[in-house]
Amino acid sequence: MMLTEVEAALARIRQVTHHTPVMTSRTVNALTGGEVFLKCENFQRVGAFKFRGAYNAISQLSPVERRRGVIAHSSGNHAQAVALAAFLLGVKATIVMPENSSPIKMQATQGYGATIVLCGNSAADREKRTTELIEEHGYTLIHPYNDFRVIYGAGTAAYELIKEVGPLDWIFAPVGGGGLLSGTAIATKGLCPDANVIGVEPKNADDAYRSFKEGIIIPSENPRTIADGLRTSLGSNTFKIIREKVDDIITVSEKQILVAMRILWERMKLVVEPSGAVSMAGLLYGGLPLDEQKIGVIISGGNIDLNDFFTHLEKQIQDL
Amino acid sequence: MMLTEVEAALARIRQVTHHTPVMTSRTVNALTGGEVFLKCENFQRVGAFKFRGAYNAISQLSPVERRRGVIAHSSGNHAQAVALAAFLLGVKATIVMPENSSPIKMQATQGYGATIVLCGNSAADREKRTTELIEEHGYTLIHPYNDFRVIYGAGTAAYELIKEVGPLDWIFAPVGGGGLLSGTAIATKGLCPDANVIGVEPKNADDAYRSFKEGIIIPSENPRTIADGLRTSLGSNTFKIIREKVDDIITVSEKQILVAMRILWERMKLVVEPSGAVSMAGLLYGGLPLDEQKIGVIISGGNIDLNDFFTHLEKQIQDL
Repeated sequence: MMLTEVEAALARIRQVTHHTPVMTSRTVNALTGGEVFLKCENFQRVGAFKFRGAYNAISQLSPVERRRGVIAHSSGNHAQAVALAAFLLGVKATIVMPENSSPIKMQATQGYGATIVLCGNSAADREKRTTELIEEHGYTLIHPYNDFRVIYGAGTAAYELIKEVGPLDWIFAPVGGGGLLSGTAIATKGLCPDANVIGVEPKNADDAYRSFKEGIIIPSENPRTIADGLRTSLGSNTFKIIREKVDDIITVSEKQILVAMRILWERMKLVVEPSGAVSMAGLLYGGLPLDEQKIGVIISGGNIDLNDFFTHLEKQIQDL
Repeated sequence: MMLTEVEAALARIRQVTHHTPVMTSRTVNALTGGEVFLKCENFQRVGAFKFRGAYNAISQLSPVERRRGVIAHSSGNHAQAVALAAFLLGVKATIVMPENSSPIKMQATQGYGATIVLCGNSAADREKRTTELIEEHGYTLIHPYNDFRVIYGAGTAAYELIKEVGPLDWIFAPVGGGGLLSGTAIATKGLCPDANVIGVEPKNADDAYRSFKEGIIIPSENPRTIADGLRTSLGSNTFKIIREKVDDIITVSEKQILVAMRILWERMKLVVEPSGAVSMAGLLYGGLPLDEQKIGVIISGGNIDLNDFFTHLEKQIQDL
């Protein structure tokens, strides 16, 4: 759990990842009283920070592991991240996806050359099918968050941010499985130990919040949040790092997530998915003393289904 | 019509405008075969390039003109641009808007401290009301595009782009009244005379295309395009500059505008309005020999009504 591991990850991924832009907004500064820097991972390859961890993990496999291939189970951004990272490294990727995954995400994952294996919609179905395939083919599992290589890779976003804008007083990151928050905490405490690292979680999927307060992992039960990337529960490794290095975890309502998202879209012209706006909601509604503080916010991704939106515009041009 | 005028404009506006980011995309490069640099004026203040020209114009008024105040007629981005520029310069602004303007745009314009005067929905109504107010109060008209100060201000976007990425082989800009295209042509031909300057216009509002081909101004008649910022006709000054410095004007269909917009939103995560995606549509569908060329594209703005989109998301969180 060292800063040097994040630096090593950055050296590994630098050539293939985007050094994503840092955006600022007068409106957001005025709303918080602070100086806010958004690290925009919606502009990352595959549209989310996930590519950083996936590439860092796969690039470290042994020649034998590479020949056998990798496997991941995900219906979201991790699927595309593993697919693209594997493709770039010449490694065969198999992605186990629930049958009810969106056709768009399946298509995108296939577009990067991965093989998709469908499974039932429960977590148990997914894990069973993945285990079977690993036993049969000897694939290496790329876990979406509980793998240290994935965590260090995720931490490179905060690392880039702080190297670019200087030491921060606060940093906000969303928390689902905890990979991004863990990596963010390692990078931030390594570069500016006095910074407050805040995890932000949907109130309707508050397993990390409750785990953090209780000191034991409490899995999420029936999480119902529009932030679909944050429905997962903490892992053993991410929980350990979070307990040690994160200052607090706060929760936000679904309504607050949408208000934050709307500011990002309408005022800042950024396409951000609900999960990616959760950190911003924590910034705006966390009730923290941010006046005259220097604040980083990780905007984690921008993958959202815009089909209905464009269908509506297509109708508009027919009616002109 | 000199480069030095654009440079003088940039010196005037530099402190208050955003030096907007230049974005690139592997997808767009692959689609064109060239190296494409998008100058993202959707990130400009008030969400569009219009602020550059408005500020450049108002900042050059005499003390007497400033005391009397400025007036503009617009239902779109120029209204907000004049309102904000006037506010920052301590000048009273009156904006004449048609009664059927969107409440959101009226609110935004009022939010910058401008006085809104409503008028009928025809161009004649608008001009009549504006003339009356000028006669009554001695306001100075800030024309949306036919004013040289507005044109030079608009040209600072292309100027910044070329200074940042180096000389271009091609540059694409949308054309409505022609202010942005004229300014872009002056800046581009001044910095890299060999570059091809291409204006892109909706086929359904092709007055500039026809005027350029015929050599006389042919006003647009009943333009029906989703690119609402490009429904206006060329002015005498913009037409003169365009004839002299623009290499070609091409047209794109409504469908092509939406496909370009969709790439900007889905792949590049940029909120861009239909008018702002027209230059991108010309890049993709213009049939020009762009292979291995270095290409600039002005993305002119990002102001679009997202009310329906967020209303839909609000319903989703209620049904979770």
